[in-house]
Amino acid sequence: MKLATYKDGSRDGQLVVVSRDLSLAHYATGSATRLQQLLDDWNFIAPQLQELSQTLNHGKARHAFPFDPAMCMAPLPRAYQWADGSAYLNHVELVRKARGAEVPASFYSDPLMYQGGSDDFLGPRDEAVFGSEEQGIDFEAEIAVITGDVAMGATPDQALEGVRLLMLANDWSLRQLIPAELAKGFGFFQSKPATAFSPVAVTADELGEAWRGGRLHLPLRSDWNGRQVGLCEAGPEMTFHFGQLIAHVAKTRNVRAGSIVGSGTVSNKDWSRGYSCIAEKRCIETIEGGAPVTEFMRFGDTIRIEMTARDGQSVFGAIEQRVAPTEGG
Amino acid sequence: MKLATYKDGSRDGQLVVVSRDLSLAHYATGSATRLQQLLDDWNFIAPQLQELSQTLNHGKARHAFPFDPAMCMAPLPRAYQWADGSAYLNHVELVRKARGAEVPASFYSDPLMYQGGSDDFLGPRDEAVFGSEEQGIDFEAEIAVITGDVAMGATPDQALEGVRLLMLANDWSLRQLIPAELAKGFGFFQSKPATAFSPVAVTADELGEAWRGGRLHLPLRSDWNGRQVGLCEAGPEMTFHFGQLIAHVAKTRNVRAGSIVGSGTVSNKDWSRGYSCIAEKRCIETIEGGAPVTEFMRFGDTIRIEMTARDGQSVFGAIEQRVAPTEGG
Repeated sequence: MKLATYKDGSRDGQLVVVSRDLSLAHYATGSATRLQQLLDDWNFIAPQLQELSQTLNHGKARHAFPFDPAMCMAPLPRAYQWADGSAYLNHVELVRKARGAEVPASFYSDPLMYQGGSDDFLGPRDEAVFGSEEQGIDFEAEIAVITGDVAMGATPDQALEGVRLLMLANDWSLRQLIPAELAKGFGFFQSKPATAFSPVAVTADELGEAWRGGRLHLPLRSDWNGRQVGLCEAGPEMTFHFGQLIAHVAKTRNVRAGSIVGSGTVSNKDWSRGYSCIAEKRCIETIEGGAPVTEFMRFGDTIRIEMTARDGQSVFGAIEQRVAPTEGG
Repeated sequence: MKLATYKDGSRDGQLVVVSRDLSLAHYATGSATRLQQLLDDWNFIAPQLQELSQTLNHGKARHAFPFDPAMCMAPLPRAYQWADGSAYLNHVELVRKARGAEVPASFYSDPLMYQGGSDDFLGPRDEAVFGSEEQGIDFEAEIAVITGDVAMGATPDQALEGVRLLMLANDWSLRQLIPAELAKGFGFFQSKPATAFSPVAVTADELGEAWRGGRLHLPLRSDWNGRQVGLCEAGPEMTFHFGQLIAHVAKTRNVRAGSIVGSGTVSNKDWSRGYSCIAEKRCIETIEGGAPVTEFMRFGDTIRIEMTARDGQSVFGAIEQRVAPTEGG
């Protein structure tokens, strides 16, 4: 099934079930009003929504209405956890190579991951507001999963069983703040502003064969100011699958229902497939020509992130955001 | 007023109002069932609970019952944000000095802070479960605040207005995992297992003169295996006050209601006051004798953390935890 959260003026919005083709929606009110409720009590509520989903897909839901992605908040407008991996090692290799550094051998067995803020996510069409263009505004196109409860010490296979929903993420980054912040030693903080998510989160069964081995084998397309800049395959080059990423989170603590775990920037070794974040393009330019040429984003710029199934159907709907200055900024 | 969350088998527990002397409690059911509800709608719900609090303090609440800290979850059993500062620079200075490093000048103007996991907090009497004693099990006694909504770009003064509640935290750390994890560059993750909080969270007016300038001017006592090891003054040596810490969080994003912001380990320059985490004791031993002598915690060890007002009254109740191995561990 496909699920979204409609804006209704509240902090958590209203849960809706969305048809497979993203044309119709239906309030889930009878079963749950908020997505977190479903995640808290998945085994009881999910079957009810699956039934509604089928009715909707067959065009037989009486109170269905046209689905409008502009009405969407993030599927979870706020969450109890946002842990973002860096699972495409090609991305890490490029960043290191551009600054003449090696990738430590341990990076191929121990995932890189940071703990992100999760109290204020952006909807797929919300403006992305920043204080200054000098901060180095960059998008990052990613895959993310929402988990159920996963016990401390879970193996990657057990952790993979905890995947409840998949979605897309735009993990906004302020590149010029990163070097000084990481140099302090405690990881990202101000350099990672509010993250945006796709209109729709979907169960794994919606993905068929594309979801296998804990990886999503479909191309992720990024359009910057209306021009395609990336069409990166999300499957084969994901060094750590989602079960491994979730198990990393669960190593020393329980992971509770509604945790969001991200893949990090989707990245391919074949540069002709383009990029899922500008920083990577700048790394390639540095490796090839000694210095970056492409600038980061400006106020007014747009970014569109979407994943299309082999049949041409948009899986999650598109993230479409405009970069904007803070009021008075 | 003083608030706690009673275990009831649910993920978020039941909100109760607790009397000033921590002897009595009363369900807040008529106004809110969960603490997050209060934080989401503070201006509407808080006055109702203040009234109940007064009735309770006057011994006139009809359905009051004896307050039992053992029944408590963390005041927020799960939260949308846990951002922990390192506001006592003496702690940072000791850690650096022990390894022969300088504290960068910027550390005195720009707070150190990490983003922590917030999906699975421990109650004040919950066992602290770890996989191995070899991980370097350590407590960290801290002050923490719970905020309302604070807008992106808030000044420290504005941010301080966002403080809704104060409590104590035990920010468990796995010291032997920290060096390798920080060397990866993305900050803490597995080295910071589930954090525990005090039985009770209190509004600032409960603290009187002790709460001033965004700092809590009371001594924080830590007892390890029944022996007092720290009685550190939390006020004067807090380099960054809570308004500054919250403003740091809000620099590039909105901070939403229910965010928890921590002070970091309370630490004093006067070593005779003892310590609020074992790592600090080991730093002092290293500075004085060339190597640490005190070992980290063992399974079966206990830690008790409490703050007493000038009149002898426990402000937040005590965190009292036992260290335990994972089942089969």
